[in-house]
Amino acid sequence: MTDFTSPRAARLSAARRLSKRSFRAQDRAFLAEGPQAISEAVNAQGVLREVFYTSSVAAKLPDLLEAVRASGAQMHTVAETVLDSLAQTITPQGIIGVCSFIDVPLEQSLTTKSKLVSILANVRDPGNAGTVIRCSDAAGADAVIVAGESVDPYNAKAVRASAGSLFHLPLSVGVSVAQAIAQAKQAGLQVFAADGGGSATLDQRQIVSAMAQPTAWVFGNEAWGLPEDILQLCDEVVAVPIYGQAESLNLGTAAAVCLYASAREQRS
Amino acid sequence: MTDFTSPRAARLSAARRLSKRSFRAQDRAFLAEGPQAISEAVNAQGVLREVFYTSSVAAKLPDLLEAVRASGAQMHTVAETVLDSLAQTITPQGIIGVCSFIDVPLEQSLTTKSKLVSILANVRDPGNAGTVIRCSDAAGADAVIVAGESVDPYNAKAVRASAGSLFHLPLSVGVSVAQAIAQAKQAGLQVFAADGGGSATLDQRQIVSAMAQPTAWVFGNEAWGLPEDILQLCDEVVAVPIYGQAESLNLGTAAAVCLYASAREQRS
Repeated sequence: MTDFTSPRAARLSAARRLSKRSFRAQDRAFLAEGPQAISEAVNAQGVLREVFYTSSVAAKLPDLLEAVRASGAQMHTVAETVLDSLAQTITPQGIIGVCSFIDVPLEQSLTTKSKLVSILANVRDPGNAGTVIRCSDAAGADAVIVAGESVDPYNAKAVRASAGSLFHLPLSVGVSVAQAIAQAKQAGLQVFAADGGGSATLDQRQIVSAMAQPTAWVFGNEAWGLPEDILQLCDEVVAVPIYGQAESLNLGTAAAVCLYASAREQRS
Repeated sequence: MTDFTSPRAARLSAARRLSKRSFRAQDRAFLAEGPQAISEAVNAQGVLREVFYTSSVAAKLPDLLEAVRASGAQMHTVAETVLDSLAQTITPQGIIGVCSFIDVPLEQSLTTKSKLVSILANVRDPGNAGTVIRCSDAAGADAVIVAGESVDPYNAKAVRASAGSLFHLPLSVGVSVAQAIAQAKQAGLQVFAADGGGSATLDQRQIVSAMAQPTAWVFGNEAWGLPEDILQLCDEVVAVPIYGQAESLNLGTAAAVCLYASAREQRS
């Protein structure tokens, strides 16, 4: 069906291989799917390289297409089946963009001006990573550091779960958890590990008052939490208190509760 | 492979059809998958009817199997392929139980003793419903009401996302959102709608102090939130404040932030 000798087919192949982490790293590019993500990518100037879209999207969302055109991104109309073959999600909604990586060096994302930062330590599930990025943005965090053996935040599911927030705040990747913690301390932030086994809880008076200070939260792996050597590097190990019989909260909801607790104290 | 004339095959067929909501309603029974859920079902006395498990689980988890036996539930060893054919999740972990419905009438779950209650209003995603049940349990809520056109909380994905919490706190189903709100008011609770469009926010002084009072939170549909006629029935429409550029939080994280904000004020 597709003419693999046409220039457009070559662009399609180049985009399609971005579903693999190794090719994303090589091209320093990732896919963003759906009108909301494309709109955010346009706003994050200089990020959007090219866009594939169906004619029905072009008819339905002329303003979005005009914004894409004005951004200078290359544009390709494709058949619905071609678009679906490119998509990583079940509902690509007729438009997919190729975006340049947006991560910045740790020294730029974590500075003496930072007040609230999330450090993802070996978070493996892309949905969780995207959710924590979204919550961090919502709570007004200054940056997100995706550290250690964490999932690639440019993974399509992570991008989707971030609901556009990936484009909203400085992101750093490819550093160890220890490096991220060291940089946070260097920048004058206290480092709180979010861990169900913490001796302190989020609602304790001394933690509540400490949270008014600039804070980096470290969120660990879904299954095994944070390893002892990382806990040792943190200033406090803080649990979200469990008032009922639940064993724990999931990563996204625990992160939301921690980040909003900090935001409230820092802003009140 | 399976002998469909054997009594065990009949039990298997009866269990397998519980993947459909209509059969669950007819039998007033649902499936719980995995060791954690089975353990919780055993603790919720009188709930577990029968269990299907592989011989490898029997070897690995003798204590769990002994607890199941002591509970009086029927037990069936099955081949791994048979168990997988019964499972609704990708990782059934070798053990699946048939449990009796555990919901109670609204008048039992929402009483003058209730301090914190979640009302799910037309929540459609089973993962979200389960997550809100889990967060409600963790935050020490007294009950969860699954109201209106919400997903069936006995759906396998919802049970799984609740991580055992479904068995921990009183649950009511099959009522309208208006009925649930009326019962909450009757029981002396104030009713707060969680809605991104709310004029009040969770961190505002008057909301913070009001949250010390017994409260029912109403959480709406993932896509379209809460309809105007429901908002009219609530005492306050409260938004989780968005301090960054995110458009919103997802349902599970927003519910976690609201419920923990109430728990903190009620317990401090």
